[in-house]
Amino acid sequence: MSTHVGPIDVDALRARLDKAATAATVAGVDALLITPGSDLRYLIGAGGSSFERLTCLVLPVGGTPVLVVPKLEQPGYAAVPTGELGVDVATWVDGEDPYALVRRALKGTDRVAVADMMPALHNLSLRDAIGGDQVLAGPILRELRMRKDASEVEALRKAGAAIDRVHARVGEWLRPGRTEAEVGADIAAAIVAEGHELAEFVIVGSGPNGASPHHSLSDRVIEAGDVVVVDIGGPVAEGYNSDSTRTYVLGEPRDKDVWDTYAVLQAAQRAAVDAVKPGVTCESIDAAAREVIADAGFGEYFVHRTGHGIGLDVHEEPYIVGGNDLVLEAGMAFSVEPGIYLPGRWGARIEDIVIATDTGVESVNNRPHDLVVLPA
Amino acid sequence: MSTHVGPIDVDALRARLDKAATAATVAGVDALLITPGSDLRYLIGAGGSSFERLTCLVLPVGGTPVLVVPKLEQPGYAAVPTGELGVDVATWVDGEDPYALVRRALKGTDRVAVADMMPALHNLSLRDAIGGDQVLAGPILRELRMRKDASEVEALRKAGAAIDRVHARVGEWLRPGRTEAEVGADIAAAIVAEGHELAEFVIVGSGPNGASPHHSLSDRVIEAGDVVVVDIGGPVAEGYNSDSTRTYVLGEPRDKDVWDTYAVLQAAQRAAVDAVKPGVTCESIDAAAREVIADAGFGEYFVHRTGHGIGLDVHEEPYIVGGNDLVLEAGMAFSVEPGIYLPGRWGARIEDIVIATDTGVESVNNRPHDLVVLPA
Repeated sequence: MSTHVGPIDVDALRARLDKAATAATVAGVDALLITPGSDLRYLIGAGGSSFERLTCLVLPVGGTPVLVVPKLEQPGYAAVPTGELGVDVATWVDGEDPYALVRRALKGTDRVAVADMMPALHNLSLRDAIGGDQVLAGPILRELRMRKDASEVEALRKAGAAIDRVHARVGEWLRPGRTEAEVGADIAAAIVAEGHELAEFVIVGSGPNGASPHHSLSDRVIEAGDVVVVDIGGPVAEGYNSDSTRTYVLGEPRDKDVWDTYAVLQAAQRAAVDAVKPGVTCESIDAAAREVIADAGFGEYFVHRTGHGIGLDVHEEPYIVGGNDLVLEAGMAFSVEPGIYLPGRWGARIEDIVIATDTGVESVNNRPHDLVVLPA
Repeated sequence: MSTHVGPIDVDALRARLDKAATAATVAGVDALLITPGSDLRYLIGAGGSSFERLTCLVLPVGGTPVLVVPKLEQPGYAAVPTGELGVDVATWVDGEDPYALVRRALKGTDRVAVADMMPALHNLSLRDAIGGDQVLAGPILRELRMRKDASEVEALRKAGAAIDRVHARVGEWLRPGRTEAEVGADIAAAIVAEGHELAEFVIVGSGPNGASPHHSLSDRVIEAGDVVVVDIGGPVAEGYNSDSTRTYVLGEPRDKDVWDTYAVLQAAQRAAVDAVKPGVTCESIDAAAREVIADAGFGEYFVHRTGHGIGLDVHEEPYIVGGNDLVLEAGMAFSVEPGIYLPGRWGARIEDIVIATDTGVESVNNRPHDLVVLPA
């Protein structure tokens, strides 16, 4: 329930608020309504916490931004330089109507954009209080958020280096006879010890569990010969996330097809990373990985998109998926993480976070891509 | 990112699905649309995880329930007995339109109720895909969820006993010279060690920080003479939450008014708990506490409602607040937690979770209510 407040750069925040208002104008909306979460953190430096009580940044085009906040949650925003940012603060207490405060801050607005993660509890109440039309703020703010500036790139590099250090140590904990949950607890502690604020997610998918892409942890006892997918990450202090997957094997793989199939995956991941540069589409990166896997006959076993954008959220724009014709620009950051999943047997995935640069691509993850053989 | 699956009682879940459909009919809606969270866990035994990909239980009045779920997240629902519950499963993969699957499961529905916590990303997309009107499912489902059955009461007792054991041990960690964050980390570990799934929240508000009701943790070094508010809780395996506050002092309180003011708070909390029984309103419980505090001249320093319901969510219906004329019934569970907050100086709060019974009230927290004096 803590309010996340990172290092505050007032000028950068002021520029973001201005750009958001401009983007809102371009999108034909009269105001942005932003509840706690990464959009709020991006705009004012504090993401807040979402409770049933309404907190909402009202950003009217051409008007004064107002932060509507419950009086008892106001201390959580103490680090936000509202005065310097030109943001008014409107507090409310239990029994008062916070939606009326939003309406007052808007004045006759008839088309608002609401944060993608705003709970229906609030956006249906705002709909009733304000009237007019609601659209999503995500497509507006993503135009800002998916183009990382230098400080954001630096934070992603820091996160990438931190999670690389954890992968370098996986051999300390991953061995036959231990459960996935036991290994996962050790990895979670290391994620924090190596410089993250918290372990946002820890996947240890051993043997057949590795064939389920979103498997988390279980009490399965890891055995010699298991292929093990380890997908881990979390935010550093600046709020930006790491997310990296490597695949391990304990001794000689039990299944005879592991080496050849893994080589296909490795080639696919390489092909997708090599395809990254400004001017190409997101779907072309997805296709680069998918083509290698399909050509080798494993197309039906690659059951998810190739990647997702990353920043203050672990999953954000741009999505590296078929049908997304968004053109990459320098500063866009995303995962490249093809996988091959053989139901009931084993699975493998390789994931790096990469950033499109002016000339090509930079990877913030730099551990080797080979299947990592650990002692059985 | 784990999918929370608790002990599954198929008959109880089937009864809940039936009651939810009946409540929807009474409310005049054609279907409930429930995304991951505690509502989903209440209805099918697994709460899922909320990502940008849509997972949604479609519960049409008089029709077959359908769980729309991304294929790669389906393993997280493996423990849900969909067949026995009569729930169809419709999976989708990246590139397909999940909102069309919801529309298909509805057939001509024109008024749907969406989960209170459904992100705008999904409910605006559903609005566009389905057309018709949206209302909140919360007021419909709260009719079920706020009346706890025997197994839910048992889980709340278990959670209450677990957090009582943590409060009994606070003296092991809370002492002058340590920061709130250090003490909080020890308490968080104890919350898990004493039987919770995780430490959902840890508030250690020392000295002036105690005067901010939602203060979490800070690097403030605790001093002799500090009054310290400790508000802690989390879910047990069944998913039901604990939430209990006690106020501590390190040696003799620095401020001379602590003992007399605390006595007022203690009387107020007692009065509110004593007022709980079936047939009285929620606002009357709030008034019982508020009257004692106001009569002693501290009315302006009690800046929040007296309590909130608790169950699968830490905050849920019924809210113990002025203006809420909901009549208490046996099985309703909520916090009674008045506080007095003296800005810049100190604060105090006493919080127990209580359950209305057929004849009066049961408290699941049973630690003494006195200001706890620890060595300075």
